[in-house]
Amino acid sequence: MKSIKAAGVIGAGVIGSGWVARLLLNGIDVFVYDPSKEAPKYVNKVIDNAERAYNKLLTSNLPKKGKLLFSASISEVAKSCELIIEAVPERLSIKQSAYEEIESSADKNLVIASSTSGILPSDLQAKMKHPERLLVAHPFNPVYLLPLVEIVGGSKTSKNVIEETSKKFTNIGMFPLHIKKEIPAFIADRLLESVWREALWLVNDDIATTEEIDDAIRYGFGLRWAQMGLFETYRLAGGEAGMRHFISQFGPCLEWPWTHLMDVPEFTDELIEKVSSQSDHQSGQFSIDELTEKRDDNLVDFLKVLKDNQWGAGNSLKEFDESLSGSINKIEFSELNLSSPILTYVSKVPKEWADYNGHMTEARYLECFSEATTEMMSIIGADEEYILNIGSYFTVETHIRHLDEVQIGESIKAKTQVIFGENKKLHLFHWLNHEDGRLLATAEHMLIHVDLKTRGASMPNDLVLKRMGLVYEAHKKLPKPEGINRAVGDKF
Amino acid sequence: MKSIKAAGVIGAGVIGSGWVARLLLNGIDVFVYDPSKEAPKYVNKVIDNAERAYNKLLTSNLPKKGKLLFSASISEVAKSCELIIEAVPERLSIKQSAYEEIESSADKNLVIASSTSGILPSDLQAKMKHPERLLVAHPFNPVYLLPLVEIVGGSKTSKNVIEETSKKFTNIGMFPLHIKKEIPAFIADRLLESVWREALWLVNDDIATTEEIDDAIRYGFGLRWAQMGLFETYRLAGGEAGMRHFISQFGPCLEWPWTHLMDVPEFTDELIEKVSSQSDHQSGQFSIDELTEKRDDNLVDFLKVLKDNQWGAGNSLKEFDESLSGSINKIEFSELNLSSPILTYVSKVPKEWADYNGHMTEARYLECFSEATTEMMSIIGADEEYILNIGSYFTVETHIRHLDEVQIGESIKAKTQVIFGENKKLHLFHWLNHEDGRLLATAEHMLIHVDLKTRGASMPNDLVLKRMGLVYEAHKKLPKPEGINRAVGDKF
Repeated sequence: MKSIKAAGVIGAGVIGSGWVARLLLNGIDVFVYDPSKEAPKYVNKVIDNAERAYNKLLTSNLPKKGKLLFSASISEVAKSCELIIEAVPERLSIKQSAYEEIESSADKNLVIASSTSGILPSDLQAKMKHPERLLVAHPFNPVYLLPLVEIVGGSKTSKNVIEETSKKFTNIGMFPLHIKKEIPAFIADRLLESVWREALWLVNDDIATTEEIDDAIRYGFGLRWAQMGLFETYRLAGGEAGMRHFISQFGPCLEWPWTHLMDVPEFTDELIEKVSSQSDHQSGQFSIDELTEKRDDNLVDFLKVLKDNQWGAGNSLKEFDESLSGSINKIEFSELNLSSPILTYVSKVPKEWADYNGHMTEARYLECFSEATTEMMSIIGADEEYILNIGSYFTVETHIRHLDEVQIGESIKAKTQVIFGENKKLHLFHWLNHEDGRLLATAEHMLIHVDLKTRGASMPNDLVLKRMGLVYEAHKKLPKPEGINRAVGDKF
Repeated sequence: MKSIKAAGVIGAGVIGSGWVARLLLNGIDVFVYDPSKEAPKYVNKVIDNAERAYNKLLTSNLPKKGKLLFSASISEVAKSCELIIEAVPERLSIKQSAYEEIESSADKNLVIASSTSGILPSDLQAKMKHPERLLVAHPFNPVYLLPLVEIVGGSKTSKNVIEETSKKFTNIGMFPLHIKKEIPAFIADRLLESVWREALWLVNDDIATTEEIDDAIRYGFGLRWAQMGLFETYRLAGGEAGMRHFISQFGPCLEWPWTHLMDVPEFTDELIEKVSSQSDHQSGQFSIDELTEKRDDNLVDFLKVLKDNQWGAGNSLKEFDESLSGSINKIEFSELNLSSPILTYVSKVPKEWADYNGHMTEARYLECFSEATTEMMSIIGADEEYILNIGSYFTVETHIRHLDEVQIGESIKAKTQVIFGENKKLHLFHWLNHEDGRLLATAEHMLIHVDLKTRGASMPNDLVLKRMGLVYEAHKKLPKPEGINRAVGDKF
């Protein structure tokens, strides 16, 4: 959505507000319409939650936050933007009258994306003047964190609208899943619906409480589904013989009377009371805010795990984070300014780097410096490929001065001076600064070049020797850093 | 299962082998019976996978691995152990004849736990001599990683057997969920069955491929279910008004024709072929071994996230890991031996501490030393409570010598000497050693006591001053550590 400057969101409930937060934090101005007086308060709360989560989720800095504007009417929104997300209640007539109001004011190129969880796009667009502009974009709560958005076109939706809008969702970190055939409830909600129904029977018949059912999910198959879904998991359960074996073994169970498929539970007051009071018993010790925070923390950490493991939803995060990241020294070596220490590290302090007080723990200072060393190695030619094929630098000695504190989410950067660089030896000095300028720590490292096969000291290749020499020649003209050559306990 | 020395496993397929691995790595001897000649090879492979995963999952050392013994018959197994896990094919007659053979040789106190995914325990125990000894203990693949085990008793099962066996499962890191009413397929498989059926329809009707369905799960609600399950998630979707609001809003959708509830898909050759070939297309680029490794890595990391966040399945892991951990200095200060450096850190190198070569990265050395510092602080009285209420020690300066390498899963420990300890100053020297004795690194730290409110230097309280003095008095008689007082680049 890089090209979009402004989007509109009609309806600011749980889903609408989640959209607002995701759009806004991606630098897009958002016009919101919701008739409720409480809407601005709730929207701002969801934005706060999203900012809190993104600060932990992303290593890159987000673009400047978009402007949040509450509009007095749907048509006011429609006049101001290129894309409208519709998130009004799930009734066809309410949605259709919203589209009518939008179309009365909008440019014909405006695209309308409905967040409906189940109504067919062909029905949604039935009465529209320009039905080709409508598609379903069904997201999942919390919209600012979960990547999935189901994309469904109706019989009159333009292919181009589907393609272009999908790209825009990818640009704001989402995973658009294009569902080719229209079907009520699309894919995910059909699956959820079947589980929900079965679960309600289990509660209704006193087989299990809501808590026991949740535990049966989250201590078991829920952990599998966060990464592989249903079919890939079963492929593994089939062992070496894979899916064919699994089906031949377990397929017949389908005909066993294991589910309440033939019945629909009636929503009596008694059942509603049972589910609600069990849910209170299960989760009532946490406020909704506390549960939201816990959920978001877990989601953030799952997504980061998957990003590190290059799997599933982590791939969406990886692409998104990389698309945001500013480049450090993405220029040629020859264009590098060697007349001052070199920028070698830029990041934000992630959540897991902090102690219980929210301050970065001491070991993470060395992690920053280690990254800065890696960048300096890369600059002189000892990059990833070199490390895989030729050799590397091993740190043999480190000295750190801890000078000031930094908190989660704050931005930090490091610069580096080469103190000595000849033959097998590389002596570096790093400064780590807060974005506000404060010097947080310094580090001094002695590194030795090693051959990765023998893991013993060895000479770098010619390119590395040459570049290291050039940086060293330039940097030895710089003043000697304050705090160099100290032993622990020396007088300041 | 601390009290159990030997268990038996009848049937060594995917589930049986998973049980074998979990039992064995908990120090329990396991007698296995499986008629297949391939069984030993497969069981050993699953054990390898489990060891690989546990090395990454646990910070504590596992007990000495149990003995793996393949038995020639079911009755041989039955003679040798106190608990038998039955994991033979899902046919009542096969299971019943296994129980008959077990009962012909077993002591009457032997407990039989069936891994059935759906057969009622009352049916399983119908023909048994001692039906009170049978219960269902339904685990989830991979059994060595997923904590859930559904515990279901039949009409004749002894309450005592249910309670005692559940405790044994808790002791080996599992989460026994006692299901009070018998129902075919219990809880989890009823939910899975309903989703599986719906998913097969979606494939059958060409609405979505297996990959699209898996993506709809793992980019969306699967991430929620790994932590909260169904009801708690929906409680949040209801916003502040919680579950009652959610039900009143979404309950009526249950009556919409959103699922194929009324039909059962027929397992035609065509459908089997469609599912299998789509699954090949989706996942065929990975071997089953590769997929298993990826799945286990993700599960390990999810469980660790949940442990850190003190949530759901992470709580089972936390208890399990803590129950394994050896105690460091759990004795009174007065009983501590001060005549040599003090043991301050014992751990195994976790997966995420390693570089792509499997070696511990440089920043993690400081993390070990930081933990050792924390333990030394705790020894002299600056423990968690002190830090929360009075003050703490901040590291102002660090010197590290990197002397040798260590790999993922290897055990390491640190000991600490107090070099100076008076008033606000604490000067420490740590040695980090491999379990094989090699010295991996040393660290020297200057710490200053600070008041947590002003975050400025301050005096420790009397207890800390006194204990620090006692350790310092004793340690200053020790030889000065080799490598102390170095600046980076000093000649060795």
